[in-house]
Amino acid sequence: MKHLTSFFISLLIATCSFAQQALWSGSQIISPEINQDNSVTFRLHAPKAVKVLVTGDFTEAGYAELVEKDGIWTYTTAPLSPELYSYSFVVDGLTVRDPSNVYMIRDVASVTNVFIVGGGRADLYKVNDVPHGSVSKVWYHSPTLGMNRRMTVYTPAGYEQNRRQKYPVFYLLHGAGGDEEAWMDLGRTSQILDNLIAQGKAEPMIVVMTNGNAGESAAPGQCPDGFERIPGFQQRGMMEGSFEMHFPDVVKYIESNYRVFKDKKHRAIAGLSMGGFHSMHISKYYPDMFDYVGLFSAAARFHENSDCPVYMNEKAQIDAQFAKKPALYWIAIGNTDFLYQENVKFRNYLDEKGYKYEYVESEGGHIWKNWRIYLTEFVPKLFR
Amino acid sequence: MKHLTSFFISLLIATCSFAQQALWSGSQIISPEINQDNSVTFRLHAPKAVKVLVTGDFTEAGYAELVEKDGIWTYTTAPLSPELYSYSFVVDGLTVRDPSNVYMIRDVASVTNVFIVGGGRADLYKVNDVPHGSVSKVWYHSPTLGMNRRMTVYTPAGYEQNRRQKYPVFYLLHGAGGDEEAWMDLGRTSQILDNLIAQGKAEPMIVVMTNGNAGESAAPGQCPDGFERIPGFQQRGMMEGSFEMHFPDVVKYIESNYRVFKDKKHRAIAGLSMGGFHSMHISKYYPDMFDYVGLFSAAARFHENSDCPVYMNEKAQIDAQFAKKPALYWIAIGNTDFLYQENVKFRNYLDEKGYKYEYVESEGGHIWKNWRIYLTEFVPKLFR
Repeated sequence: MKHLTSFFISLLIATCSFAQQALWSGSQIISPEINQDNSVTFRLHAPKAVKVLVTGDFTEAGYAELVEKDGIWTYTTAPLSPELYSYSFVVDGLTVRDPSNVYMIRDVASVTNVFIVGGGRADLYKVNDVPHGSVSKVWYHSPTLGMNRRMTVYTPAGYEQNRRQKYPVFYLLHGAGGDEEAWMDLGRTSQILDNLIAQGKAEPMIVVMTNGNAGESAAPGQCPDGFERIPGFQQRGMMEGSFEMHFPDVVKYIESNYRVFKDKKHRAIAGLSMGGFHSMHISKYYPDMFDYVGLFSAAARFHENSDCPVYMNEKAQIDAQFAKKPALYWIAIGNTDFLYQENVKFRNYLDEKGYKYEYVESEGGHIWKNWRIYLTEFVPKLFR
Repeated sequence: MKHLTSFFISLLIATCSFAQQALWSGSQIISPEINQDNSVTFRLHAPKAVKVLVTGDFTEAGYAELVEKDGIWTYTTAPLSPELYSYSFVVDGLTVRDPSNVYMIRDVASVTNVFIVGGGRADLYKVNDVPHGSVSKVWYHSPTLGMNRRMTVYTPAGYEQNRRQKYPVFYLLHGAGGDEEAWMDLGRTSQILDNLIAQGKAEPMIVVMTNGNAGESAAPGQCPDGFERIPGFQQRGMMEGSFEMHFPDVVKYIESNYRVFKDKKHRAIAGLSMGGFHSMHISKYYPDMFDYVGLFSAAARFHENSDCPVYMNEKAQIDAQFAKKPALYWIAIGNTDFLYQENVKFRNYLDEKGYKYEYVESEGGHIWKNWRIYLTEFVPKLFR
């Protein structure tokens, strides 16, 4: 063992001389610390700072002020409800990450630190000691769009071993500003699926997360513009029909490359915001494709007057879709969501026609907290 | 189109009211900016700051001071050589990330921003317009360790389509403090492989990146301790033989689940630092397994006096390995690496015995810059 110990001592000495790379300069301060009572303590070593805030939705104001002692700034929240929380520090007006916390999630062009207060539904967002599915970043060719595109594919635990088993497929779409990584990172999809399947609350299924911006091939950092791309809302190729039109290319790729059932009964589609709009239009334009449809805080609108066939005779398309009686048409939205009225209008149309759908109204607005909740509620209803 | 425009306006208004989540608060400042002459300009908006530095190995001192005007701090480097660079800002003593750059890489417990100055070899580190392989995070069962463990598997472009083609496999191991994500994130493995294969400089191959810490199942954030785990050097289960002993479990999993050749001629193993130590010991303990062996800045030492069979009669194991004439035994190290003398000693043993190996000595020390270079040089030599 002396060799091992000497190796680590040498390694630490060696790496100190590369301090300019800041490679292994992990801080010794613990932050955030989740206390026994689910209060959370934030700590930051910043002896020269004048004012330090922590931003986050765990206080009513959206931020709280830290107090300094011996150069360490501290703030402890009230006990928090189980949830995945994001936060940043603001030091004298500058938004910074918590140097003691390596865990961060990007949403469009913002990166924030994250932590999970466990318990209740939030335990579904955690990595638990259960069998884990595999997560793959895969490139597929789309003849319709004339490009190679990237997507994320979750295959459930056991997929590799159970060589004769076929699986149903759930297509899960992101919102404006998102990409094929959003549902995995912000949505905790693989954790939610692993946990629900392990608990017997969901069927083992494949989950396919596409990139819904038809004008681009992949997430920021994964295209030829690499690290020079500034993530943003890509209006090119969004909500103008291209993505919806090309969707059979995705289905064909999955059904050619994975052990899956290839019928409507074993296909589901859902999405949030723009992805809800996509799910609504794809499922009506291809009414024989999906038996399960989920609109999460969807831009549930008719386009009208568009030249794209996806948006022509939209109500007739909806009528044709419901004439085939989908196994589940599920609509969820928060009561303060900016798309709330639009959903009322869309539901009014369905009600008028007597079309059957399920409706869930939650607290809050157009936020990931709600989309994670909707995912945990929608998935157990599929393929049963 | 008016519907689309109104959607985005509503979305932007809606998200402003969630400013406490700092979700979409992307800055308008461009930083870093790579200029025509390959100089790089850093910018930070911090009107209250007194002193701002940028750390990084692009200046001799390891840092440079930014100059303030109208609240914006700026620094422009001299023209930089092609390379992947990492950096952080230091604002009044506090290390912070660049809020204008979402691209970051974690190394053990440190997270730094990154950018690439293209040209030459560094173009291999970029995402280029070439066919891309798939990257999967996969869980395998190890009967030897009695646990489920996570690894990263790169399958080259065309793997899904060329159903009759079999592939060789390259096992690529990380160093102390690393995990199954290190070679992908810090090592740019998928970009390097995509580019070398597209240029015809490397055979299409599968690359398997394991977790070399036998005491843990997966990278930080991917275990049941989730976001509460502080990444560090996991001395439990490192360099005491468990990982080396269990390696056939990995090979068996890959050969049972992927379309690969299953003979020595089509297997390579290499690793950096501790991973070089692992590659040396695995390849000698299982001398019929790998025809290609790479030691990158390796802890190329004999353990001696260990009870673990991997470390018993070590020289006899090396002798047996070289008696079988491996197709390639490749050793690379930087001339200021803290393991340099150890490599001299190991090479002396090989020289004494007249064993054939290739040796590359580079500038610099125990750093990722070198390991990326070694990868680009080693991979073209495999399976040809």
